[in-house]
Amino acid sequence: MAVVRILTDEEADPRALAVFDKIRAARGSDYVNNFWRAMAHDPAAMEATWDRIGQVMGAGALDPMVKELIYIAVSTANGCSYCVHSHTAAARAKGMTPEQHAELLAVIGMAAQTNALVTALGVPVDARFMADQD
Amino acid sequence: MAVVRILTDEEADPRALAVFDKIRAARGSDYVNNFWRAMAHDPAAMEATWDRIGQVMGAGALDPMVKELIYIAVSTANGCSYCVHSHTAAARAKGMTPEQHAELLAVIGMAAQTNALVTALGVPVDARFMADQD
Amino acid sequence: MAVVRILTDEEADPRALAVFDKIRAARGSDYVNNFWRAMAHDPAAMEATWDRIGQVMGAGALDPMVKELIYIAVSTANGCSYCVHSHTAAARAKGMTPEQHAELLAVIGMAAQTNALVTALGVPVDARFMADQD
Amino acid sequence: MAVVRILTDEEADPRALAVFDKIRAARGSDYVNNFWRAMAHDPAAMEATWDRIGQVMGAGALDPMVKELIYIAVSTANGCSYCVHSHTAAARAKGMTPEQHAELLAVIGMAAQTNALVTALGVPVDARFMADQD
Amino acid sequence: MAVVRILTDEEADPRALAVFDKIRAARGSDYVNNFWRAMAHDPAAMEATWDRIGQVMGAGALDPMVKELIYIAVSTANGCSYCVHSHTAAARAKGMTPEQHAELLAVIGMAAQTNALVTALGVPVDARFMADQD
Amino acid sequence: MAVVRILTDEEADPRALAVFDKIRAARGSDYVNNFWRAMAHDPAAMEATWDRIGQVMGAGALDPMVKELIYIAVSTANGCSYCVHSHTAAARAKGMTPEQHAELLAVIGMAAQTNALVTALGVPVDARFMADQD
Repeated sequence: MAVVRILTDEEADPRALAVFDKIRAARGSDYVNNFWRAMAHDPAAMEATWDRIGQVMGAGALDPMVKELIYIAVSTANGCSYCVHSHTAAARAKGMTPEQHAELLAVIGMAAQTNALVTALGVPVDARFMADQD
Repeated sequence: MAVVRILTDEEADPRALAVFDKIRAARGSDYVNNFWRAMAHDPAAMEATWDRIGQVMGAGALDPMVKELIYIAVSTANGCSYCVHSHTAAARAKGMTPEQHAELLAVIGMAAQTNALVTALGVPVDARFMADQD
Repeated sequence: MAVVRILTDEEADPRALAVFDKIRAARGSDYVNNFWRAMAHDPAAMEATWDRIGQVMGAGALDPMVKELIYIAVSTANGCSYCVHSHTAAARAKGMTPEQHAELLAVIGMAAQTNALVTALGVPVDARFMADQD
Repeated sequence: MAVVRILTDEEADPRALAVFDKIRAARGSDYVNNFWRAMAHDPAAMEATWDRIGQVMGAGALDPMVKELIYIAVSTANGCSYCVHSHTAAARAKGMTPEQHAELLAVIGMAAQTNALVTALGVPVDARFMADQD
Repeated sequence: MAVVRILTDEEADPRALAVFDKIRAARGSDYVNNFWRAMAHDPAAMEATWDRIGQVMGAGALDPMVKELIYIAVSTANGCSYCVHSHTAAARAKGMTPEQHAELLAVIGMAAQTNALVTALGVPVDARFMADQD
Repeated sequence: MAVVRILTDEEADPRALAVFDKIRAARGSDYVNNFWRAMAHDPAAMEATWDRIGQVMGAGALDPMVKELIYIAVSTANGCSYCVHSHTAAARAKGMTPEQHAELLAVIGMAAQTNALVTALGVPVDARFMADQD
């Protein structure tokens, strides 16, 4: 597959290579995964995306591992197999245990099921779930 | 909206009322929300769903509040507005702060964006993200 | 809501009115629902859609009521609340019982749940589920 | 692919093997497909899912083959290729003919198209499609 | 993969072969892609789909290349990898440059992100975005 | 609806008000729509999103009106009714004619239909649609 070439280091331009270097440094690994090698065709977008991911996924009010679980949940619902694979790897690297993975799957499955039931029943939102508006 | 009547206590049959009672006891509140009142047309399914939610969403290897965040993430990606409203209310009831909510939204938005980029680029899964198979 | 005006009979042009007439005749009812009144801005597309729906949804190898169940299933998964409402009404008009509706919801919910589990696990398709190719 | 190992009989624990046995008995076949081998990492969830599928997909007010068609419809709209493959195989095993398959595809395609049109037009739900509420 | 055989010219029936011929003539290429070879199991549906695509995707008020961009956008959001691949090829054949492709991806990613934010916030539609209704 | 308050100018903090000012200046209108008023709870995210939208949606290799069409296409497929409404208004403001709108809807509907057919048939990607890889 792939709509564009997955660029090797040799094929990537200097600006993309500089992002590869940042990725390698941040992860302490020489490996750069296919997503970044595909994004390398547009170094400006690649750079902006990498910077934003760093800001969004780092430690804050939520734990970085929890953020990976949320990422997996969205990726699953959006049917992005690549993203499910890469962020499950990332969650494991950040300490996700098999028990936590199993519970994550259970919540995702439960949510998918009740989302469908709610939609098929056309349930109207309870007034108390809405923020007060003037 | 609603494809079926949202049943009042007077309209619900005894088996559904018994689930209403469980919901009230578990939440320490007399209020029963529309999802359960719509599900009350099928007391057996309603009962099974309530029991499973109790098992899945309770404390385990993941914190109950984190489970609500995952639920919101899936519901957002599935476009279930009702579910987003009800589980955001649940997450707040379990302690989600405005800062955590803001970070949740940032992760959901980031994931949605990169999911789309990955799909539009057709990025193949890196071998190292796959579990070894014989 | 609505991105375009929901046209009244007075506002619709003659070609759209002719499709309204076909709809009224086919259903034995004077009521023309909002979808067709929104589509009436583009009479050619409206006509083609109505004709195709007639061909696709009529009796054939599958029962017309079963076709409505399939329509509801797709509409639920796509999060189209309007379509869920209109096709649940259509399924009831074609004889769907409350018991059949309950079973439909159970299958939709089950499928949504296992779809999510399969995606979150990245399960590869078994060779025996694929059609033989040279 | 696969986020977890697809477990062989040798790798599965006794509780998972017991579910494999139930699957083999129910289907009259020694073959256990990848979904169950992936689920085998969490025998409790696997068992619960198998039991629920048995209840939901068996004969009732709807025919088991019709239930498979609904399953395929949901799986298609959710973009779950594995599920489309496995449930198309199941539908065939339960008697789905090529003509019925062709009509299923036509209904799924029609629904997907009109779902999109309705959403792009923002069509409001007709009052008569909503269940009466107090 | 594939749920049905991808039919060769030898396996396709005369009515399907006639559509293959139309495809070859329209594209000035002997190659017929897998989608049409899979659709060839239902020549009537195949024919109708090909004719409609010709009408919809040809020149009109929108440029044919722009229509391919819209097609890619929908296919990405629906997670249809095949469609993303085939319509990116079609867009390139109609003149899409790498710069236009990069901007397309940026818009798709931006839309996916804000779609998620809007849904997660439950933002109500502003009155001024709705068409006036009586 | 709404999960958070839609903030008035009086409720928004100075940093959010500064973004409101930028929005008003860019659009030459005093009106600030609900999305931005909901985002105003997180001024940093709001600011970053507004800046990125300006970069992504402005003139470049693609026309700004075409970018709005792509936005509508993604929003439709993602079922974001708010986004469909707001970006259809934006497309009209940038010159989209009723004929272009009708063609947009036709392409979106066609894509949704064939996306579903491709997925339901499990069509494998043709080698010629993939970028060459080593």
